[in-house]
Amino acid sequence: MWPNTRVTKLLKIKYPIIQAPMAGGITTPELIASVSNAGGLGSLAAGYMSPESIRNAIVKIRSLTDKPFAVNLFIPEKHHASKQQIDSMVTILKKVCAKYTQEITTIKPPFSYSFAEQIQVILEEKIPIFSFTFGIPDDSWLKKLKINKVKLLGTATNLSEAILLERKGIDMIVAQGCEAGGHRGSFLDKPENALIGNFALIPQIVDHVKIPVIAAGAIMDERAIVAALIFGASAVQMGTAFLTCPEAGTHTKYKKLLLSTTQDNTALTRAFSGKLARGIKNKFMAKMELYQNQILDYPIQNALTRQTREIAAQKGLTDYMSLFAGQAAYLSRGIAADKLIRLLDSKVKGLLSKNL
Amino acid sequence: MWPNTRVTKLLKIKYPIIQAPMAGGITTPELIASVSNAGGLGSLAAGYMSPESIRNAIVKIRSLTDKPFAVNLFIPEKHHASKQQIDSMVTILKKVCAKYTQEITTIKPPFSYSFAEQIQVILEEKIPIFSFTFGIPDDSWLKKLKINKVKLLGTATNLSEAILLERKGIDMIVAQGCEAGGHRGSFLDKPENALIGNFALIPQIVDHVKIPVIAAGAIMDERAIVAALIFGASAVQMGTAFLTCPEAGTHTKYKKLLLSTTQDNTALTRAFSGKLARGIKNKFMAKMELYQNQILDYPIQNALTRQTREIAAQKGLTDYMSLFAGQAAYLSRGIAADKLIRLLDSKVKGLLSKNL
Repeated sequence: MWPNTRVTKLLKIKYPIIQAPMAGGITTPELIASVSNAGGLGSLAAGYMSPESIRNAIVKIRSLTDKPFAVNLFIPEKHHASKQQIDSMVTILKKVCAKYTQEITTIKPPFSYSFAEQIQVILEEKIPIFSFTFGIPDDSWLKKLKINKVKLLGTATNLSEAILLERKGIDMIVAQGCEAGGHRGSFLDKPENALIGNFALIPQIVDHVKIPVIAAGAIMDERAIVAALIFGASAVQMGTAFLTCPEAGTHTKYKKLLLSTTQDNTALTRAFSGKLARGIKNKFMAKMELYQNQILDYPIQNALTRQTREIAAQKGLTDYMSLFAGQAAYLSRGIAADKLIRLLDSKVKGLLSKNL
Repeated sequence: MWPNTRVTKLLKIKYPIIQAPMAGGITTPELIASVSNAGGLGSLAAGYMSPESIRNAIVKIRSLTDKPFAVNLFIPEKHHASKQQIDSMVTILKKVCAKYTQEITTIKPPFSYSFAEQIQVILEEKIPIFSFTFGIPDDSWLKKLKINKVKLLGTATNLSEAILLERKGIDMIVAQGCEAGGHRGSFLDKPENALIGNFALIPQIVDHVKIPVIAAGAIMDERAIVAALIFGASAVQMGTAFLTCPEAGTHTKYKKLLLSTTQDNTALTRAFSGKLARGIKNKFMAKMELYQNQILDYPIQNALTRQTREIAAQKGLTDYMSLFAGQAAYLSRGIAADKLIRLLDSKVKGLLSKNL
């Protein structure tokens, strides 16, 4: 039997399984609804979405499920780039991606949607669970969220971040091990200084904070779920495991690559967004190594490479797409999200019932 | 009840717990005998020891225990530094360690003891278990070891290394997660490219090789032991957990630091030995960041900094000692090795007997 964790009670879900927010069109309403309908918690990765798109997605999700789901936003941070720096990165990108595009152009601020307008939609739509990454919302927002009884999930990559999240009254902590795919959620220190494996990260957060901890990073099957629970986590957040689901908005060629992976072939890079993230190694990452010092602040680099990534996606050139994935991507299954949750249910029960 | 693993059978030990080889005088005969007598497997870290010292240590261990123990060696690799490069590093070290020493002098080859002479002692002394790091012994040595029925433990930091070890007829693989303290055992790729968390590393090696896998890295308590077994490991190798044992040759101030740690405060550095290793951050590591490009090949850098490390140890200056430790060092206990093994026995049994 599954343990009855604090997270399943707090979030009113059947299984302590959260589908990770994965930005860039991955978390379709269909994926989210499929996860939530099956008893997990779907998450809309709304960080790069306009307030209108967020609202439309919420309406769509609600037409597909009456179960709870979360919406995730990125906490904004200071960023700066001169016009000259941006133009210089345009030149670099043209050179790096020369084979397929000269169409990339310079960009102007704003480089991302307004956080205030994004979070306003979450409050207006009475979303029950709000998860966030790259920091902690200002106290004024936290107050509004608390008044609206929104359950809050913050992301920590080390103990100091976890302690700060707890102090700020956040309800649950996603502990992001260094195995995790996509962006590092570090916000108190350089992400390079907070690359802690889950064998060390989960216990040290669990041992030092009172609020429930959700383990994230290389959670792909029943072994990782049970291990996370043994370390004291109250739930898991799984990203890569859902990337290959037919309901996910993942590019077909990106799915194929994930499904053909036999061992970890990921690396950390700032080249796509300006912020450190883990993805399957490709030519873009390798070529951009030469220009490490010219990579622009997040989210400026992200706004700029969106052009090259979109053209690459249209042409199916995985070598120039962002292929975010965790270190256990080789366990990708390519089955429907609800089927994956039912499979994990059966496999976790099997593992828990047998003697080691 | 503990599972009856393939490793306990192969190594003829009671518990699937291996005390990691930790070079630099840590693995005293007393520590090794205490671990082996308690039912684990002690390991003599002989990489930096002269053939005579290895033989003396073996005699001493045998006077303290009749149980099996392992001896570990470093596989030699190509290295080069000009006299000018060495002298330049002497100047750097004098500057970096200025507060306490001007006594450091230049060094000449050989920079380490002869591997052939070291391994000869292992064969002559009929050591039953030989573990090795940084590569694989040449086929001629493997043949001699096999003829002598020595059980072989190789270290892998990614799947490619594990597959090669299996192909070479090695009996067991130590899977070294990125959480692990001390030197990275990588030998097929740059160690920076093989920093895989145990949540991802253990299953991917277990799923792809047939020989038993021993998990290493952040294994400090019953939670990590059970998690490793759930991922399919047949045993664990624990280093940091034994560093604070009274039997260990660890400097008193280094032990104190480990025992006062509340969260991961380690980083990876080449500054001590020329080879990437994880240790508690200190001034030496921070100051040496400026000279990254001048750090000499392993083991030349190691031979050179031995002088500064020894003086620092004499003066009790932890800021200039190497303080190798894993990412879960905060779980250090400071109890005797045999007591630690009995405690783990009781705690593992407790965890396995209770429902999650």
